[in-house]
Amino acid sequence: YPILIRFSFYLFEILRLNEDPNVQGLALDLPESLYSSKVLNAVKPEKDVDGLSSVNLGRLVHGDVSDCLVPPTACAVMELLEDIVGLLCGKTVLLVGARGAQGAALQSVLQREGAAVLSCPWRAPQLQSELRHADVVVFGSTKPDDVPVSWIKPGATIISCNMVKNMERWIQSQQYRKWDLHCLKLQPLSPVPSDIEISRAQSPKAVDVLAKEIGLLTDEIEIYGQTKAKVRLSLLERLKDQPDGKYVLVAGITPTPLGEGKSTVTVGLVQALTAHLNINSFACLRQPSQGPTFGVKGGAAGGGYAQVIPMEEFNLHLTGDIHAITAANNLLAAAIDARILHENTQSDKSLYNRLVPVVNGMRGFSAIQLARLRRLGINKTDPETLTEEEISKFVRLDIDPSTITWQRVVDTNDRFLRKVTVGQANTEKGFVRQAQFDIAVASEIMAILALTTSLQDMKERLGKMVVANDKKGEPVTAEDLGVTGALAVLMKDAIKPTLMQTLEGTPVFVHAGPFANIAHGNSSVLADKIALKLVGEKGFVVTEAGFGADIGMEKFFNIKCRASGLVPSVVVLVATVRALKMHGGGPNVTAGAPLKKEYTEENLQLVADGCCNLQKQIQITQLFGVPVVVALNVFKTDSPAEVDLVCKMAKESGAFDAVPCNHWSAGGRGAVKLAQAVEKAANQKNSFKYLYSLELPIVEKIRIIAQKVYGAQDIELSPTAQSQVDRYTQQGFGNLPICMAKTHLSLSHQPERKGVPTGFILPISDVRASIGAGFIYPLVGTMSTMPGLPTRPCFYDIDLDPITEQVKGLF
Amino acid sequence: YPILIRFSFYLFEILRLNEDPNVQGLALDLPESLYSSKVLNAVKPEKDVDGLSSVNLGRLVHGDVSDCLVPPTACAVMELLEDIVGLLCGKTVLLVGARGAQGAALQSVLQREGAAVLSCPWRAPQLQSELRHADVVVFGSTKPDDVPVSWIKPGATIISCNMVKNMERWIQSQQYRKWDLHCLKLQPLSPVPSDIEISRAQSPKAVDVLAKEIGLLTDEIEIYGQTKAKVRLSLLERLKDQPDGKYVLVAGITPTPLGEGKSTVTVGLVQALTAHLNINSFACLRQPSQGPTFGVKGGAAGGGYAQVIPMEEFNLHLTGDIHAITAANNLLAAAIDARILHENTQSDKSLYNRLVPVVNGMRGFSAIQLARLRRLGINKTDPETLTEEEISKFVRLDIDPSTITWQRVVDTNDRFLRKVTVGQANTEKGFVRQAQFDIAVASEIMAILALTTSLQDMKERLGKMVVANDKKGEPVTAEDLGVTGALAVLMKDAIKPTLMQTLEGTPVFVHAGPFANIAHGNSSVLADKIALKLVGEKGFVVTEAGFGADIGMEKFFNIKCRASGLVPSVVVLVATVRALKMHGGGPNVTAGAPLKKEYTEENLQLVADGCCNLQKQIQITQLFGVPVVVALNVFKTDSPAEVDLVCKMAKESGAFDAVPCNHWSAGGRGAVKLAQAVEKAANQKNSFKYLYSLELPIVEKIRIIAQKVYGAQDIELSPTAQSQVDRYTQQGFGNLPICMAKTHLSLSHQPERKGVPTGFILPISDVRASIGAGFIYPLVGTMSTMPGLPTRPCFYDIDLDPITEQVKGLF
Repeated sequence: YPILIRFSFYLFEILRLNEDPNVQGLALDLPESLYSSKVLNAVKPEKDVDGLSSVNLGRLVHGDVSDCLVPPTACAVMELLEDIVGLLCGKTVLLVGARGAQGAALQSVLQREGAAVLSCPWRAPQLQSELRHADVVVFGSTKPDDVPVSWIKPGATIISCNMVKNMERWIQSQQYRKWDLHCLKLQPLSPVPSDIEISRAQSPKAVDVLAKEIGLLTDEIEIYGQTKAKVRLSLLERLKDQPDGKYVLVAGITPTPLGEGKSTVTVGLVQALTAHLNINSFACLRQPSQGPTFGVKGGAAGGGYAQVIPMEEFNLHLTGDIHAITAANNLLAAAIDARILHENTQSDKSLYNRLVPVVNGMRGFSAIQLARLRRLGINKTDPETLTEEEISKFVRLDIDPSTITWQRVVDTNDRFLRKVTVGQANTEKGFVRQAQFDIAVASEIMAILALTTSLQDMKERLGKMVVANDKKGEPVTAEDLGVTGALAVLMKDAIKPTLMQTLEGTPVFVHAGPFANIAHGNSSVLADKIALKLVGEKGFVVTEAGFGADIGMEKFFNIKCRASGLVPSVVVLVATVRALKMHGGGPNVTAGAPLKKEYTEENLQLVADGCCNLQKQIQITQLFGVPVVVALNVFKTDSPAEVDLVCKMAKESGAFDAVPCNHWSAGGRGAVKLAQAVEKAANQKNSFKYLYSLELPIVEKIRIIAQKVYGAQDIELSPTAQSQVDRYTQQGFGNLPICMAKTHLSLSHQPERKGVPTGFILPISDVRASIGAGFIYPLVGTMSTMPGLPTRPCFYDIDLDPITEQVKGLF
Repeated sequence: YPILIRFSFYLFEILRLNEDPNVQGLALDLPESLYSSKVLNAVKPEKDVDGLSSVNLGRLVHGDVSDCLVPPTACAVMELLEDIVGLLCGKTVLLVGARGAQGAALQSVLQREGAAVLSCPWRAPQLQSELRHADVVVFGSTKPDDVPVSWIKPGATIISCNMVKNMERWIQSQQYRKWDLHCLKLQPLSPVPSDIEISRAQSPKAVDVLAKEIGLLTDEIEIYGQTKAKVRLSLLERLKDQPDGKYVLVAGITPTPLGEGKSTVTVGLVQALTAHLNINSFACLRQPSQGPTFGVKGGAAGGGYAQVIPMEEFNLHLTGDIHAITAANNLLAAAIDARILHENTQSDKSLYNRLVPVVNGMRGFSAIQLARLRRLGINKTDPETLTEEEISKFVRLDIDPSTITWQRVVDTNDRFLRKVTVGQANTEKGFVRQAQFDIAVASEIMAILALTTSLQDMKERLGKMVVANDKKGEPVTAEDLGVTGALAVLMKDAIKPTLMQTLEGTPVFVHAGPFANIAHGNSSVLADKIALKLVGEKGFVVTEAGFGADIGMEKFFNIKCRASGLVPSVVVLVATVRALKMHGGGPNVTAGAPLKKEYTEENLQLVADGCCNLQKQIQITQLFGVPVVVALNVFKTDSPAEVDLVCKMAKESGAFDAVPCNHWSAGGRGAVKLAQAVEKAANQKNSFKYLYSLELPIVEKIRIIAQKVYGAQDIELSPTAQSQVDRYTQQGFGNLPICMAKTHLSLSHQPERKGVPTGFILPISDVRASIGAGFIYPLVGTMSTMPGLPTRPCFYDIDLDPITEQVKGLF
């Protein structure tokens, strides 16, 4: 009696069945799951009907039929169906005796997968004839023994279970799970200790516990040590019908060189929402570059009592994403130069013989070579049939070395790599050229990681990256170099967001950290999307945009939201009295130097004058139709009158609300009012819109940003910039969004012009493109893509205690 | 009644105590353990006497006294003692009523920690007076309520438990655990599929299951995904009294460019030992560089049915160790150039002001700066008191740029970085210099990782690395640059070996992979040491040395074994009929080209002639006093007569045994005879000795290796080499072992000379030093430290299926 029982299930289920006296034996057909050995060890020998010790478990292919008779639970059967739904498209599935709401639910799932679903009550007269046509038969509450085998179509898949009873439970297990979050308590000290001391003083929850609390399934996470886990993208499929939560962006006014504390607000806000107001929330943050960590800046996990912990993990290798980007970026760079060398030193024939070698007497194109042939219009698959001209077209990318835009990267502040000459060894036969190294986070691959929406999408974007032009001026891509698949392989784990937690035990995603000047400076679309599903309809996802609202927020809306399709609910605009005083005419603020007294004593006039910048940034936000809440990050030197003044002026300027915050010294408790204001604002009407249409010419899009956002009178393109615009337009890249590369220290291009500069002409010195990431980036002045080490880098204070293994001095 | 109850314990213990009706409440004092949140969630509210929701658990400092009364188990008390033993040195500990063997064991533990231990029976007349003097009182089987509080010294730590009953169980839990290994079954297919297909066809055990099977405690591993885990070095302390297992080195004869399959033998041998002979064993392998994986060579996880799985994880980022090395290496490189620039562009005073800045009105040296002052003979700690001359000495490293030996690295085959000019941007003010990039595994930091024995030792070695000379010819170190601590922080996780498994589910450590030419080409000392404890006295640890025995094995004995102090039991010498025929005069063997018929048809004469190389390599092994077993890696084209001939000649040449192996096609079953021979050989008398004394002059040590190992008539140093030798000797580095950088394709320096060349003079073109790793490396000819990409790199075939997430074409 041929019965196919196939179900994958989790350990606890086996353990339960082990103890069930009604279960005589267990037959398993596992998918290629990593749990198989756990499962293998779990089945009691006396119940092992497969002879698990002699069967290679993971390898039974869908379609095999075993003759084991097992009473599976409905739960397992549903998991089975999940395994084979991909195979059901076009098949006829007969449900026998699957009644009521559960039967209907099953039916709809199967139909969604493209199966033709028939339903038949048990012992109905038509059963015998229906069975003849079914490719898959699912028995509901009945025993299959009651059905003569002769009734069933040969080769059909048969599933038997008491489905009706338990299916509901299974369906629920696959659906959205309410949070059951245990928050960590804080007892803030005064004065506030150093960031690393605060971080170390709190014991984070084990990350698997956190994952379970927020409704992640066991097989949706990959643990990295005790406090970090990657989350699989499969969750997006499981929860695709779950409504998204509210989406909050934290942006800032034009900052001082000391920063205004956007990350701290982001973390403080989620601590307040979740640990104090009991509202689900997620912070989605950028992964910091290791370069600045050891250089000038130190770590970047928030600060004070609003931090991600453990902060040393956050700031060091994390789960290796930036290292993966470095590896992928540099493989592509090596491929470019090596290819030029090989083309320069070999004939067409010899190139062809090497690119398409005879292996075991056979010669064949690889998949990526066939794709290139198709792009070249050569529709041949037999390497022997190409004409000489076709061979030449195929083997020669003919890269013009002077047009190479793809640079090597390191995740180190190494100023001596800003401009280098490569290829000077004799082995490179004189093919030297000038090149540069960027910091790893400036790689286009980082921008892609931040904007991609799936593995498939990432692979396509990686292939589309333009690295140079050929001698005819046509773009040469990573795909042309044959390296797309290898890049995707190197990035396969980096695409999964990393789960961590705040000081108060609320969840955080850390994922991607593209440079905010030449790229868009926002954390990943995927982390936001997953978090929006996990928090549930009434929850909040809070993410952050680099630099001031004129830069980071503008890119968030016009680039990131366009890529994701997500609609933001609220913008939180972070301001400090310090920065406002600077905009009001206060003296220079310089990192490392002590603050002048204007900043440490009350000065209402400076504050009032500086609020023009806040007002302008509020207006910029309103261009996008999203309500804005101002968060005033309060320092201990700010007077109550100064704080009140800012809040008053912010509200007068159109902010939905303006709230002083003390999360740095008090944790989430210090941001409760902000959280309440954000919650209210999220329920406001929202008329989100992009600033420009993609269909406009590149120059027009740049002008709209310059005028409407920066307040420029007009723009002026250098001849280089204009010719680049013409080239990109001609190459078909004119419809991409714009990613401005401009100083963040002023609304204008001149960092010293504080407040709200007007009447300036924004000079566009050059225009470049990240085709894989999908944007054009005009350069307003020169943008350094490689920081340097100062005379006394942070690393002087960084140390490791070899006994306790604790990191010291990271901040 | 002041009682200090402090114990850290695991989840199950809490869960058990939750259910124990005799336990009225639980008070916890957790160390800064990552399990705290699990624990926090576990305690039932009704038993929570700490008010866990209002106490910051991890922060109670040793020495606090709480007034909670808890009946802890003896197990917990022992864990408590373990927590505080570090604080017991010099303290008086009184054991009250701790009797018998358990009491004695406790006493010896405490004494080992430097405590003065008194013991007193319960109700003994002297109890009252003893209690007055005790800093710590441990009550055995009694209730502390019976002792008047007035008897006890104020501030004393008091521990109460029913220790006698359960202590034995606790001690056992901390000791060596027998393996309970579940091996995975293999069903080898014929013909043998590709490596990646074989790897994917097997479902690995979850790594936490494997870890438990081989006796690792839960807190000794850090899981990275489902199939990899790092193992903490604390295990070495826990099992320090456990005798080591047998230590087996796999080396090879002089290879063809195709390799002879040493990794495959290593993996096959442990599969045979453990899965087929039921003897504990561990393979310790090198982590491969990603460069060759995407370049020419493909992956390196063994091959066929003797592999480490999942092979794509093994070959890609693994747990990030090589990325950590890259980051550390390049931070140091950036620090060198930045320092030269800063010294060249600033006055002494301005350098000093920046290096020792005023922070919050105070000026202080960092720890690493104080250490530098001491090395300079300046015994001052107040920055204001240095003389101008002292300031100048302190701030100027005065690096001579022409002597910089520290190079940047990438883990990519990037030939265009073999020679570069750096510093060409205007911001570097003309301080250009020529430099090079090496492949990451050629970094001295990789050699250090492979040779280090502890975190403390690694930190010291990192600090000692010499990166250049100053203008007076004195060595400049990483410590001088102030970067030691930062390097150690970057390497803090890399120092932990990564646990994986073979195709048959036996354990493997993957750790470190130093270049086999300019470094010593052996996996890590730490992995070997941990594995030797884990396998137990009768178990086997099998590791591998790069290249032929003349290179990898010689370095294994003279460098690695010297660093570790470990004594090898057996050498397995891998040979193939193919390589022997080459040595017998067969035509050239080239990667990529089809094999000539001499290699695919029987030719006993070539084999017989080529056995001279095997004989010589056997003799080299015997120089070190270790028994040698020849493993003949059988290919399907080898005739039985050829196989028999090799085995016969090997035994005649002094091998303990010689065995044909078929693990590639058959898995461990194909190496059972080899395993049996190795086991027998391991019980032979062993008279291991180093080849030379470290006290000999550098040149003398080089000559001994050249003559005794390579068979050279003599050596000849170039003037450069001689002056380097003189310099290192004068700098005090003359007593380091020698790490020869010589071609592996011949016993001589000329790759084309096969068999056993004689009468040659070995030319030493240059001599360099890795002071942190601890060896001098003479260069015999030029050694490339950066491979290149071929015209058709492996990456053409590598791809990722975006739906199944499976890697394709990696091999």
